[in-house]
Amino acid sequence: MGPGPSNVPSRVLQAMSTPLIGHLDPAFIEIMKETQDLLRYAFRTENRWTIPVSGTGSAAMEAAFTNLVEPGDVVLVPTNGYFGARMDSMARRAGGEVVYVHAPWGEPLDPDDVRAAFAMHRPAVFGFVHAETSTGALQPHVPDLTAIAHEHGALVIADTVTSLGGVELRVDEWEIDVAYSGGQKCLSCSPGASPLTLNETAFEKVRNRAETVRSWYLDVGLLESYWGDDRSYHHTAPITAIYGLREALRLVAEEGIEERWSRHLRIAGALKAGVQAMGLEMNADDEFWLPSLNAVRIPEGSDAKALCRHLLLTHGIEIAGGLGELAGKIIRIGCMGHSAQPRNVLALLPALGDGFARQGITLDVGAGLDAVSEALRAG
Amino acid sequence: MGPGPSNVPSRVLQAMSTPLIGHLDPAFIEIMKETQDLLRYAFRTENRWTIPVSGTGSAAMEAAFTNLVEPGDVVLVPTNGYFGARMDSMARRAGGEVVYVHAPWGEPLDPDDVRAAFAMHRPAVFGFVHAETSTGALQPHVPDLTAIAHEHGALVIADTVTSLGGVELRVDEWEIDVAYSGGQKCLSCSPGASPLTLNETAFEKVRNRAETVRSWYLDVGLLESYWGDDRSYHHTAPITAIYGLREALRLVAEEGIEERWSRHLRIAGALKAGVQAMGLEMNADDEFWLPSLNAVRIPEGSDAKALCRHLLLTHGIEIAGGLGELAGKIIRIGCMGHSAQPRNVLALLPALGDGFARQGITLDVGAGLDAVSEALRAG
Repeated sequence: MGPGPSNVPSRVLQAMSTPLIGHLDPAFIEIMKETQDLLRYAFRTENRWTIPVSGTGSAAMEAAFTNLVEPGDVVLVPTNGYFGARMDSMARRAGGEVVYVHAPWGEPLDPDDVRAAFAMHRPAVFGFVHAETSTGALQPHVPDLTAIAHEHGALVIADTVTSLGGVELRVDEWEIDVAYSGGQKCLSCSPGASPLTLNETAFEKVRNRAETVRSWYLDVGLLESYWGDDRSYHHTAPITAIYGLREALRLVAEEGIEERWSRHLRIAGALKAGVQAMGLEMNADDEFWLPSLNAVRIPEGSDAKALCRHLLLTHGIEIAGGLGELAGKIIRIGCMGHSAQPRNVLALLPALGDGFARQGITLDVGAGLDAVSEALRAG
Repeated sequence: MGPGPSNVPSRVLQAMSTPLIGHLDPAFIEIMKETQDLLRYAFRTENRWTIPVSGTGSAAMEAAFTNLVEPGDVVLVPTNGYFGARMDSMARRAGGEVVYVHAPWGEPLDPDDVRAAFAMHRPAVFGFVHAETSTGALQPHVPDLTAIAHEHGALVIADTVTSLGGVELRVDEWEIDVAYSGGQKCLSCSPGASPLTLNETAFEKVRNRAETVRSWYLDVGLLESYWGDDRSYHHTAPITAIYGLREALRLVAEEGIEERWSRHLRIAGALKAGVQAMGLEMNADDEFWLPSLNAVRIPEGSDAKALCRHLLLTHGIEIAGGLGELAGKIIRIGCMGHSAQPRNVLALLPALGDGFARQGITLDVGAGLDAVSEALRAG
C-alpha cells in the first residue's frame, strides 16, 4: 500500500515465469499486437502509436519529452510536485527552455494560471501531472487544460503514472496528445514495460524534427520499425515484462475499465472515511483527492519515517512518507490495482493505530474500522 | 539457438514469479548489493560502479555512450558490424564527432589500424565490440587495443553483450574503462536489467562533465544516489528483472566463470566440428571464431530466411540469418549460456539437414553427428 509497486496478482506473476521466445518470433508479434490493443483500451484511445516502452515509468516519461521537445522549444511544466520537477530536468536535457506554472505542493493547477502562463510564455509543449504520486493530488479540469494548450497550438504531455487503470482517464475524449504511465501502480504489474501513447499530431511533430532525437533507445521514429507494420529489429524487447504487462492488462479488460475506476473510488473512499474517523486529516481537498494515492496529514510531533518502518517490519505493510515540501508532514497510502481490496484497508487501520500509539499518539481505530465497514456497505 | 534470447533456466523463470517488494525496501537493498557483487564477479572487475541498467542491452549501451561522450568529443567506432553502427548513432546523439576504424564485416579490428586511427583522429573515446552478434566475430587482442587508447589518454567502451558469461572477458586485467552487456545472451536471463561497469577514470569523466548528460533516465551521476551508498530514490527499478538477473548470476557463480567459458568453448567447438563435417563452412577464421555466436556460410542458392522459418516452425529451433553485408550469406547459431548443451547441438544438426534438403541441398548429417560426438568425447 505504498506509492508503488502495488501487489501483483498471481496470474501476472505466473505469466512472468513463462519460457522466453524471441522478440522477432511470429508468436511474439501476436503478443505485441494484443498488448497494444489492451493498452489502447486502458488509455481510452484509438492512437495507432500506443506501445510499452522498454523500461520503467521514467523511461516512458523521458521518451515523451525527448521525442516531443526540440532544442529551443519553450516547455511549460508545473511546480506543484516532484514529477513536475522531473519534467523540468528531462525537458532541459532534450534542449528545451523551461517555464513554469505554479501551484502549491499538494494542490492541482488552476486553469486560469495555465491560461496566464500560456499568454506570457507561448510554450510549444505543456506537461502536467494527472495524478501526483508525491503529493496525492489529482488534476481535475483536464479538458480545460488541453483546450488552452490547443488554442495556442501547443502539444500536451500528461503524466498518468498513478492514474492509468485506477482513476478516470480518457486520452482521446480529453484531447491529450501524449500520455505515459508505469506498470507498477494501478495496473499491478511489475515495472519494466511502460505505457506510452501519442496521437497523430504528436507523432507528426516527432517525424518533422529538425534535429535527431537525443536518445537512440527511446527514439519513437526508430521504434516505429519494431512496433509499427514492419516488425523489424530495433532493440531486444523486455520479453518477460511484456508477458506480465499483457496479463495485467487482460485483468483490466476482464474487470472493465470503468468498473475498475469505480472500485478504486469505493475502496479508497472507505480508506479515506476510515482514517478520518480515526482522527486523521486528508491532505487533499475532496475536489482533487486522488483515490490511488492517499496523502494523510500526520499529527504534530509524529515521525513519519519511524512509522513507515514500523508498519513494514512489524505489520508487513508498505506505506511511504512525504517528499519535498511535504516530507515529514504526510504519509502516502497507495490504493492501487490489485491492492485496492477491502481486506487491505481493514488490515491497515489497526496497524496505523499501533504505529502511532508507539509514538504516544492515540487514534480511534474502532471508529475507523466502523467507518470503513459502513462506507463499503454503502458501496 | 538464435542470437538471443537464449533459453532461460527454470530457476530464473521461477525467480521472476516472486511477489514484488518495493524498490526502497531494506530487503531489496540486500538484493541490489548481491546483484552488484555477482556482476563484478562475472565481469572480472572490482569496479565500484557496476550496476544493472533498467532496460535491455541497448539501454546499457546508450548509458555508456551518453554519459562518456560530451558534445564535441571525437569518438572512434568500428565499421565491421551492426553494433559498431549503433555506437555511431548513439555517440552522435550524445553530441560526439564520430570517426572510424575499418575492418570488413565478419572480421575483427587490426591493432595497427586502431593505432593509425588514433594517430590521425586523436579520439577521446574509443568503442569496440568484443563479440559481434551480427557477424559472429570475436575481437582478439583486447589488451593491445586498450593500451593504444590509454597511450593517447582516451577511454575505452567495450560492447560485451554476447561475451559476458560465455567467452573469456577480464575487464580489470584488460584495462577496459567501460563495459556493457545484456541479460539474454550468455547469462540466459530475460532481457530487462542490463550489466554496466565503469572504472574510476570513466566515472571521473562523467563527474566532471561540462554539460548535463542528455538522458535523465540513464544519467550515471543520478543513478549513483540509488545504486551508491545513499540508496535513495531515483527511478523505480525493474524489480522482477533484477530478481531474474540475480538468479542467473548465481548460476554463473555456482558453475564458476572460467568453467563456464570452457563449457562454451567445448559445446560450440562440437557444434563447429559438426557443421563443418556436414559440409558447411564457418564464416570466421579460428583466430576470431566466437563460440557464443556461430556464423555459418550457407551454400550458393540457399534461402536463409526460409531455412530459419522452417527450423522454427517445424523443429521448434530458433536460429537467425545474417544482417547487413552478410544478409543472405550466413546463418547465425547461438550457443549461449543455458542453451549451450550437447542435446541442443545434437538436435540442431538433423534439423539443419532437413531444412537444407527442402531446398535441394544435401548435407552429410551422419558425419556431422559423428564429429559432434567425437568432439564432445575429446572434451
